[in-house]
Amino acid sequence: MRATVHVRLKKSVLDPQGQAIHHAIRTLGYESIREIRQGKYFEIELEDDVSPERARALLEQLARDVLANPVLEEYWVQIEEESE
Amino acid sequence: MRATVHVRLKKSVLDPQGQAIHHAIRTLGYESIREIRQGKYFEIELEDDVSPERARALLEQLARDVLANPVLEEYWVQIEEESE
Repeated sequence: MRATVHVRLKKSVLDPQGQAIHHAIRTLGYESIREIRQGKYFEIELEDDVSPERARALLEQLARDVLANPVLEEYWVQIEEESE
Repeated sequence: MRATVHVRLKKSVLDPQGQAIHHAIRTLGYESIREIRQGKYFEIELEDDVSPERARALLEQLARDVLANPVLEEYWVQIEEESE
């Protein structure tokens, strides 16, 4: 089973990396871009004998405890149930 | 208009960051996770007067030239046309 976890800074938290990219590309002519925020995501492959419910619970815990910093970041889990 | 660009290492390229996370979490009891690969994504806000077609062309160029390294990475652009 495949799943993804997305992690991004909360809207209230400054994203200096995104701002740096935004500033750099404005000098390259990308004037129609108003804002860029950078996040990360994880493609995760689970053993086939894990149920979607169990996988979701496991990945919510993994995201909260390991992949994200819940003080500054928010995350969401997507289970690709349809794919083999 | 909002859009996202995802960037990830090509399947043929080793992902030491993902492997390190995978190794670390196996010692924490996440035995049912078979593989983790880490990618990044960008949430991009464009000016409202840009058409979806123009936005897609612009972001494909931005991804290829700035956000990704096409030798090692692959990317895809998603335009959220429905949102205001």
